[in-house]
Amino acid sequence: MSKKNAFYAQSGGVTAVINASACGVIQTARKHRDRIGKLYAGRNGIIGALLEDMIDTSKESAATIAALRHTPGGAFGSARYKLKGLEENRAEYERLIEVFRAHNIGYFFYNGGGDSADTCYKVSQLSRKLKFPVQAIHVPKTVDNDLPITDTCPGFGSVAKYVAVSTREAGLDVASMAETSTKVFILEVMGRHAGWIAAAGGLAGQTRAEAPHIILFPEIPFEKRAFLRRVKECVTAYGYCVVVVSEGAAYKNGRFLADTGTVDAFGHKQLGGVAATVARLVRDAHGYKYHYAIADYLQRSARHIASKTDVDQAYAVGKAAVEMALQGENAVMPTIVRHADKPYRWTIGMAPLSRVANREKMMPRRFITPDGFGITAACRRYLAPLIRGEDYPPYRDGLPKYVKLKGIAVAKKLGTRFVL
Amino acid sequence: MSKKNAFYAQSGGVTAVINASACGVIQTARKHRDRIGKLYAGRNGIIGALLEDMIDTSKESAATIAALRHTPGGAFGSARYKLKGLEENRAEYERLIEVFRAHNIGYFFYNGGGDSADTCYKVSQLSRKLKFPVQAIHVPKTVDNDLPITDTCPGFGSVAKYVAVSTREAGLDVASMAETSTKVFILEVMGRHAGWIAAAGGLAGQTRAEAPHIILFPEIPFEKRAFLRRVKECVTAYGYCVVVVSEGAAYKNGRFLADTGTVDAFGHKQLGGVAATVARLVRDAHGYKYHYAIADYLQRSARHIASKTDVDQAYAVGKAAVEMALQGENAVMPTIVRHADKPYRWTIGMAPLSRVANREKMMPRRFITPDGFGITAACRRYLAPLIRGEDYPPYRDGLPKYVKLKGIAVAKKLGTRFVL
Repeated sequence: MSKKNAFYAQSGGVTAVINASACGVIQTARKHRDRIGKLYAGRNGIIGALLEDMIDTSKESAATIAALRHTPGGAFGSARYKLKGLEENRAEYERLIEVFRAHNIGYFFYNGGGDSADTCYKVSQLSRKLKFPVQAIHVPKTVDNDLPITDTCPGFGSVAKYVAVSTREAGLDVASMAETSTKVFILEVMGRHAGWIAAAGGLAGQTRAEAPHIILFPEIPFEKRAFLRRVKECVTAYGYCVVVVSEGAAYKNGRFLADTGTVDAFGHKQLGGVAATVARLVRDAHGYKYHYAIADYLQRSARHIASKTDVDQAYAVGKAAVEMALQGENAVMPTIVRHADKPYRWTIGMAPLSRVANREKMMPRRFITPDGFGITAACRRYLAPLIRGEDYPPYRDGLPKYVKLKGIAVAKKLGTRFVL
Repeated sequence: MSKKNAFYAQSGGVTAVINASACGVIQTARKHRDRIGKLYAGRNGIIGALLEDMIDTSKESAATIAALRHTPGGAFGSARYKLKGLEENRAEYERLIEVFRAHNIGYFFYNGGGDSADTCYKVSQLSRKLKFPVQAIHVPKTVDNDLPITDTCPGFGSVAKYVAVSTREAGLDVASMAETSTKVFILEVMGRHAGWIAAAGGLAGQTRAEAPHIILFPEIPFEKRAFLRRVKECVTAYGYCVVVVSEGAAYKNGRFLADTGTVDAFGHKQLGGVAATVARLVRDAHGYKYHYAIADYLQRSARHIASKTDVDQAYAVGKAAVEMALQGENAVMPTIVRHADKPYRWTIGMAPLSRVANREKMMPRRFITPDGFGITAACRRYLAPLIRGEDYPPYRDGLPKYVKLKGIAVAKKLGTRFVL
């Protein structure tokens, strides 16, 4: 049988380093031209496969592919598009296999979080049933850091660094103005269900007196009175109070502090505005002058302040995914295995997708201080290495030089149209 | 007469590079110990002088002072405290002179924006009347870039770079997700009356297709219908739309798009929430999924992505202020004089405070495209050199190493207490 082609797609929210994983996949595939034919990428993620709209990565120069390593966003386009269960919508999976068969695709590299790990697993299962073998390898990516087994998820370290650096910088700003101006500053960060990103803000300070003074985690039910008391204590003791709040912060009954009432394609509630909610609580209770920032997409696209550790790991899982495919693996995900905290030593491991799909890794309670407002020494030991090292992109005229693909389409082979 | 001491204070909103100016002042004063005695700094700005609460900078090591160059925030503390007019509150000015007299202070370096230029000018005038000569030199600083005469204001170039870089990065993020997710992204930036910071976002894109697609300036009255039409055009043409909006964006009748109804110590309205307002307009009209970020203090404290040009200029005006004082100048401000755009060539000039105080430099209309939503080539020529060059701070364990002063107080000499 002729050598197989490969398919790569980005899924879900993009990160500052997801293209570094793509770079790892493509460069490694190019080194094995004897065994892997063309590498196609889905335009806009898995939708590109369903619509048979694929980008021929072989048309991109080596320099372009190398520049993916320092380019944020999803260079091929990503999608918030969750394939339903096999029973509910078998047609979608069959269509994928149909497209893979038409283009002689034997390797499927899917770069995403928990939902895409699940999809990847199902593709692998179905391909066996349909007698068109596809080796499905999941390439981990999520700023939420909530995939199981792996020490961390590529994308997280760079958001963590952004949040820690920004908290330290804004903290200095607020400290210097607090005597006559803003006393309470609130930084809203991502993290729907897990407080990993908010926790990273805690790395900014070395002592209790330094920002951030309060972290609000999704894992800890929000108690208004305890929070407001703590704000007052901080303003009294230090002159100001910096709060890092996760978008997923919620009351005991599960209601989010800010709930816009709309849902995204994955059925997740679309959140926003928790910072404003917290600010109003502080103003109404204490009358302190406040300011708030909402980092939103800035935090996950901030390649200019990416963690070198994170970039290296993002590249490494992409590279490992191809190597695993070549070793005949299927339905697996490369993982980061931690061997030591300081200095951080890690290697690449491998996890079966059956153990990855649909499992979320929450912050352990022992990573959060007893009062629920800070991170413990154990948490610092875990987080600290993940933000280590700088990996600046090249600049031209004061701006980072990010690459844009030619994005030349693969000629369609199927006469059929697929309706999403 | 014995050699005079000097007094330095930071005023108003701090920046990523105001301490670089302090570094320039202190290092230059230290080079002239034959003519300048001790350099005292106001703790929390001018309040430190009024309360006779001053920091003895001679107790800080050379390494600490050098590290101010890469430390954001106001290391000595700043204040939003505007001295009233001489007629309204002569007591405050007399108190300043009383403290200066008690501590043999003959040089007053005031590091701030338009309001502090005015204060600086009045101190100079009054010291003459009270027969205690003080040479008052204003050191320009403001992220708003609204001081007259000078080519730019130290602090602005770094905010401009932060906003341009962030807009480019978030733009790539949104572009890659737009097919199935967020179609409109809004970034709220500072700038109460002048749109300089919002304009800097325009540097992120090279073509009309690239982010940002729309900039909302305070100078251009907001027209809802034209704005919403443009948003739709962009989403149709490019698949998404990135908007940079100034906090000072306002309707034709002068009402801000977001007005919290509170005022700060300078009597300025405290703004916030324009991004949410704009997002709601988009959602209600078109139903597009949106996200918004509010950069708030992150933008003006982001020393990690400071403009090298800005850092150099901030240092240079601090140095020049001391040199001007030694040349006998009084009631003046060092300025940046532009000689060429590309490559950018600049030197230090000097402006009399009588021509600086209480005058705001607005964006010229010719810097804004006829439709009011973008920047012109002339604006790019002006802005581009100001963000050029990177000047990374040193890092330890993945975080920038910022310095903290010992902040040892100067012994009080006056028995009197002053009530603010």
